Amino acid sequence: MSGTLYGVGIGPGDPELLTVKAWRLISGAEVIAYLCANGSQSMALEISRPFLPDTYKTIAIDMPMRMEREPAMAAYDEGATRIATVLNTGKDVVFLCEGDPFFYGSFMYLFERLHKTHKVLVVPGITSITAIAAELGQPLAERDEVLKVLPATMSAEQLSAELKTAKSAAIIKVGRHFTKVKAVLAELGLSATAVSHATTDKQTITQVDEIAEDTLPYFTTILVRRK
Amino acid sequence: MSGTLYGVGIGPGDPELLTVKAWRLISGAEVIAYLCANGSQSMALEISRPFLPDTYKTIAIDMPMRMEREPAMAAYDEGATRIATVLNTGKDVVFLCEGDPFFYGSFMYLFERLHKTHKVLVVPGITSITAIAAELGQPLAERDEVLKVLPATMSAEQLSAELKTAKSAAIIKVGRHFTKVKAVLAELGLSATAVSHATTDKQTITQVDEIAEDTLPYFTTILVRRK
Repeated sequence: MSGTLYGVGIGPGDPELLTVKAWRLISGAEVIAYLCANGSQSMALEISRPFLPDTYKTIAIDMPMRMEREPAMAAYDEGATRIATVLNTGKDVVFLCEGDPFFYGSFMYLFERLHKTHKVLVVPGITSITAIAAELGQPLAERDEVLKVLPATMSAEQLSAELKTAKSAAIIKVGRHFTKVKAVLAELGLSATAVSHATTDKQTITQVDEIAEDTLPYFTTILVRRK
Repeated sequence: MSGTLYGVGIGPGDPELLTVKAWRLISGAEVIAYLCANGSQSMALEISRPFLPDTYKTIAIDMPMRMEREPAMAAYDEGATRIATVLNTGKDVVFLCEGDPFFYGSFMYLFERLHKTHKVLVVPGITSITAIAAELGQPLAERDEVLKVLPATMSAEQLSAELKTAKSAAIIKVGRHFTKVKAVLAELGLSATAVSHATTDKQTITQVDEIAEDTLPYFTTILVRRK
């Protein structure tokens, strides 16, 4: 009997935003897997710390953070192989995912490598965009409004076209694309708020037109809502 | 000293999908508020049942479910007044919101009536769309993909235009708009899955092109993801 891989969403940063289901699975886990960016500490492990069992084995997947895709894909290949080895002994593995596993989450790369050969279950988590709306006291969307999630990597033309037909939008992964995004928002006359590291000690909330920097942290989201 | 109103997201239906923060606030609540549709039982109260304190006072806001907006707005007015009366005595009120309070949630109507005069805090919840993606084992969106949340009330033309420029979409509040949505999806050659009452005992998962009915439950979401 093969074990089950659980992709567990742990939310944006505040440990109290884990679900009861995530808590149950993590606190009972024998083997816990997570990503480490460039060999640094795992933020997912930090968020989950209050719920970790006394003893557990770890599968730390070292993830090179570079522009090229190949090194990251090789790291997912290796991580999937290590997880499969544990699953094949009949043990379950709990993989910790910041935010929600299927909402722009890195868990998808492990899911696609393992779900055909092993049992893989996903536990949804609080997304950064709902957490940010709560922090701002600003509804994401209501009634018959269209809500769009727009990665900041898209071209200025695409971004502008999408914003014109949305009442609400969350522009995600802003990072080094900030200057472009700011220009598009200014051209459309839209006011917007940038939030970095939502619900953590490092959280910052700033009006976009008050930001002088060219680059913001990668985990920055800009919320736009038309009046 | 006025009390605080907490708008607490309790997720789509499975009580294990409440956050630890929601659990803490609900289990310690002196006064719990919720909506009752047409005087029936509150689904929010049912979802929260494992976490309810032994004794608590309730503010049950009876919500007429009709096409006209005025009766509902009058019910929110009256509910906000009842909540304010309790807050003014210095007591906190915990309002239970299915899903997430600021993601198409009814809490917004109370928020807009009370946040200028009282302290109102929002606790994010698991949204139906991430829960459905988890149940289906189908990612909502990844990497540079655009994700759109589209209320089924929009016209066939608008829906078609929005779907053409999205890799992923969640069509929400499908209910009596199903025939229109199905026709648009067929015209665009998109396969899609309809999920009703996600994560509850009543959950159904069906391929859209296999559904013969004209109308689906109001709380039906259709997930679309281009190959």
